[in-house]
Amino acid sequence: MLEQIKSIADLKKLDVKQLPQLCAEIREKLIADVGRNGGHLASNLGVVELTVALHYVFDERDKIVWDVGHQSYVHKILTSRGENFSSLRRKGGVSGFPDCEEDERDCFNTGHAGTAISAALGLAHARDALGDDYKVIAVVGDGSMTCGMTYEALNNVKNTELLVVLNDNNMSIGKNVGSATLNMSKLRVGKYDRNKERLKKFLLKIPLLGKPTYKFLRWCKRRAKLGYVRNGYFDNFDLKYIGIIDGNEIKDLVYYFTKIKNNVKKPTVMQIVTKKGKGYKPAEDDPESYHSVLPADAPSDVLESSAVAGDTLCTLAESHENVVAVCAAMAKATGLSTFQKQFPDRFFDVGIAEEHAVTFAAGMAKGGLHPFVAIYSSFLQRSYDQILHDVALQNLPVTFLLDRAGFVGEDGKTHQGLFDLSYLSQIPNVAVWTPATYKQLSMMIEKAYRTESPVAIRYSKLLSHDERGFDGRWNVLKTCAEPKLYILAVGARLSRFAEAVAARNDGVAAVEVTTVKPLDHALLDEIASNGAALLTLEENVLSGGFGQSVTAYLSATNARIRCLGVDDAFVKHASVSEQLTQFGLDEEGIDAAVSEMLSKG
Amino acid sequence: MLEQIKSIADLKKLDVKQLPQLCAEIREKLIADVGRNGGHLASNLGVVELTVALHYVFDERDKIVWDVGHQSYVHKILTSRGENFSSLRRKGGVSGFPDCEEDERDCFNTGHAGTAISAALGLAHARDALGDDYKVIAVVGDGSMTCGMTYEALNNVKNTELLVVLNDNNMSIGKNVGSATLNMSKLRVGKYDRNKERLKKFLLKIPLLGKPTYKFLRWCKRRAKLGYVRNGYFDNFDLKYIGIIDGNEIKDLVYYFTKIKNNVKKPTVMQIVTKKGKGYKPAEDDPESYHSVLPADAPSDVLESSAVAGDTLCTLAESHENVVAVCAAMAKATGLSTFQKQFPDRFFDVGIAEEHAVTFAAGMAKGGLHPFVAIYSSFLQRSYDQILHDVALQNLPVTFLLDRAGFVGEDGKTHQGLFDLSYLSQIPNVAVWTPATYKQLSMMIEKAYRTESPVAIRYSKLLSHDERGFDGRWNVLKTCAEPKLYILAVGARLSRFAEAVAARNDGVAAVEVTTVKPLDHALLDEIASNGAALLTLEENVLSGGFGQSVTAYLSATNARIRCLGVDDAFVKHASVSEQLTQFGLDEEGIDAAVSEMLSKG
Repeated sequence: MLEQIKSIADLKKLDVKQLPQLCAEIREKLIADVGRNGGHLASNLGVVELTVALHYVFDERDKIVWDVGHQSYVHKILTSRGENFSSLRRKGGVSGFPDCEEDERDCFNTGHAGTAISAALGLAHARDALGDDYKVIAVVGDGSMTCGMTYEALNNVKNTELLVVLNDNNMSIGKNVGSATLNMSKLRVGKYDRNKERLKKFLLKIPLLGKPTYKFLRWCKRRAKLGYVRNGYFDNFDLKYIGIIDGNEIKDLVYYFTKIKNNVKKPTVMQIVTKKGKGYKPAEDDPESYHSVLPADAPSDVLESSAVAGDTLCTLAESHENVVAVCAAMAKATGLSTFQKQFPDRFFDVGIAEEHAVTFAAGMAKGGLHPFVAIYSSFLQRSYDQILHDVALQNLPVTFLLDRAGFVGEDGKTHQGLFDLSYLSQIPNVAVWTPATYKQLSMMIEKAYRTESPVAIRYSKLLSHDERGFDGRWNVLKTCAEPKLYILAVGARLSRFAEAVAARNDGVAAVEVTTVKPLDHALLDEIASNGAALLTLEENVLSGGFGQSVTAYLSATNARIRCLGVDDAFVKHASVSEQLTQFGLDEEGIDAAVSEMLSKG
Repeated sequence: MLEQIKSIADLKKLDVKQLPQLCAEIREKLIADVGRNGGHLASNLGVVELTVALHYVFDERDKIVWDVGHQSYVHKILTSRGENFSSLRRKGGVSGFPDCEEDERDCFNTGHAGTAISAALGLAHARDALGDDYKVIAVVGDGSMTCGMTYEALNNVKNTELLVVLNDNNMSIGKNVGSATLNMSKLRVGKYDRNKERLKKFLLKIPLLGKPTYKFLRWCKRRAKLGYVRNGYFDNFDLKYIGIIDGNEIKDLVYYFTKIKNNVKKPTVMQIVTKKGKGYKPAEDDPESYHSVLPADAPSDVLESSAVAGDTLCTLAESHENVVAVCAAMAKATGLSTFQKQFPDRFFDVGIAEEHAVTFAAGMAKGGLHPFVAIYSSFLQRSYDQILHDVALQNLPVTFLLDRAGFVGEDGKTHQGLFDLSYLSQIPNVAVWTPATYKQLSMMIEKAYRTESPVAIRYSKLLSHDERGFDGRWNVLKTCAEPKLYILAVGARLSRFAEAVAARNDGVAAVEVTTVKPLDHALLDEIASNGAALLTLEENVLSGGFGQSVTAYLSATNARIRCLGVDDAFVKHASVSEQLTQFGLDEEGIDAAVSEMLSKG
């Protein structure tokens, strides 16, 4: 059936009874394509019925904003990208997140959590101001209810017509946290499903009266949910509340959406309960592991930075009681699951609340603890002000662990860790360290613990197994009698390339840069005094990054410097290798830059 | 009496009946010293009783975190800084915000809103982890209840012992906004005070029975407020709620704090109602104008950038229906009061919610409007991720108006606008414009409206009245036959200095830099090709700033460049002139740099 659905118009021609079959086929496609290419599986399996129902009931010109956006695959399959869906997350293929460049029905790009209601409210105001009348719908996971931004947006909805679908699956990426959330959704999938099914079965067994009674009860329930059920939390914001609806029951969803579309003009929150991973047993049983899956051909059992960071922290915590760890809804992804089990009282998952995470850590540091805040590079952008204003200004011993720094590959534009060297280096008092080997990562965590000021350690998912350590200076990987050119490389991948290129070229030295702030001034002075040129390599925007720091430091000398990095651009999804190539940061690109510099030298 | 209080110990010796007299004397001191030096008046007048009661009841080792911190003057007067208080906000004097370098009883530095509960929660966890037992108290204005961070923190309090004093004065800096806030504090000062006083007077007139009845009723009321009153909003977080208490009634405060200190172990929110500006009629009547007052000797009726920005926006909005304005709790301070009155449907004050403000604007831009987001430079740091992820990534036509860029003088460390050139320049698609004259500011706002991508316009409070305009190129202020050195200056103050210094020195040209991104490449190419040296001036950190952009752009040439700016430091309160001097950015400093460069040239 899915093959027949070439457009939303085709979808609307189906009878509501045909929709479960369509949903089943979409699930099959998801499991096949995401299984092969990697991507977000569990969340998309959970929202199949929701997405089908939204497009079945609402008009094509209505605007759906997908919070976080990792659950937009079904939407993409239904809106022009179904045939091309096997290209998911590949270079030139379908993006794993809403992208208005792909299709205008991706009406607002998302990637970070908690932005949907703000954006939807903006769209709704624009609609009203310009005299249009399309509907605006924000689909928000309950994880995003831990975001301060979501609260700020709810507080500003007032009378603007807007539908918020609260997709309650009791998950962020990991298990949800926080008091408000706990109170908000006391009714959970398992219990809810079981009771409903039991009653239905019981009634339908009764001859003659059973079916009418069931239908009457269903009618009562639906009227009650539409009209009379209230929710204390949303009452605070004077929002109409409808819920709780079974979000994997397509007929119910179609019923409620139709009612809302035609009758409800007030800003409304509709709370649905869905099962993350629905329809795929392994994902249902362990949704956190199936939140994001690797491509089928990815090697398994690879050591990742997160595991090394987590293990090092556990060891450190065993001997130092003031070590605590903070994460934002990503205990497993940041390698902290073991720490959480071993030191439950010293582990804090604050939810998707990066701003609070950092200032909370600042408070703990001020009180005598040493917090390690583990947040992916891209997500820590949320905390720029808190790092500056709450940690750095008081020069507090908080250590930041920024995983997924540099190119992140298939997740694309919204998830690249390409800004951290700049936004961290510009903040006074903050040291920025960049391990290239697992050993360095481990040593840096230990050294940061002994440092009485803020340290940010930024690294990519995979590092080198080499045994090179960290003593505060940069590591010369390859040198020669009188180098004419030094390649200075930040991070594991670029250091490896630098070493390889240096090995092929006479007169070229390669240096592994382990600290972007402070720079290794002694080494830079030596290089400059010998009259050698410098080529800097970094997976970061050039503005405010490593290369510009080096250029600024050596500006009073005659040193020739060239900086390779990302020149003022957002970087789309592709493999990391392809992204490196795009910016001349692969071996070939570096080779070319070196040849050019040597020829001019 | 105030002169006798040399320490908290002295305060504790007073009888509770003496406290009103002390409060009155503190008010006199505030009005005198703040009136002379300038500073935050209305908020401090409102919390006199609160601060006295906190220190009277709680121990010196207990920790009070002042949200925003502008209301900490009374706390400072009581904790060792009373004698020196006339140095408030002056160089080397008492800071206008909590500063742990001044006194350890300023237990956590604040300045931006909404951080107190996060920090206090961190301190409380540290206390519990290290086996200590001090109390932790966060004093939070109701304005900060519009902050997402405050929500994130409340959501994470759980069972940690902590007292939040919600100081409800129905104000942020301007009038409060938002649905949650409206519901939270339906009872307001005026009505509350009147009714209470009327009942008290009535009862005390009745002979014999009147006084015992009054006392019995007061006892009932106090027990009820301590034990039985609930608040739907805080119920969401399972927090004990006590309120609403008259926060200008010292005896009540002492009573409740004593009860809480000795009996309440649960995390508690105590809501008090205070009158901003209390005890000083002009400030009571117009608390927004008396939020922050100028020093007595400051010239009045000076044209400010905010007024020019506001007027220009009004004119633009008259002829263009898609112009809308967004601010974060500072309509008056950002010059938007007139716009608000003239275009109420196109004006959005979202509360102290900078994150939401920016993404909401992005949504409106996506829907066809052109939003102007007016947020002070320092406060826009909160929105770094939203500018990057929600505006720039989709290249949306949102214009940012960053007032108070560069040195801000007396507000000090937490309020300096010294990072924006860096955090904005590093974001792809964002143009960064820097007017030096009022005319340029006005022209830039008009030009930004015609620009289909994000533009950030950053400026200081005062600009030049000169008639120089903006055509996208930099303005050469002074040149000569064959300049040996160009001074490139960002902003009004530095442009003026540059021109003056150039006028005194042969062979020196002065340039007013109107765009930091993009740079004026044609002019830079010309300078470099003529072999002239360059001296860049900016009120910004050097890392990632204007000077480094110029250095990077010219790195392939032999141009000699020196960059003056803030070299990796936070900058304390002092006058703007003193701050300029500190970093060699006054005329003398620039003269010296020019002489040195010329002598080496």
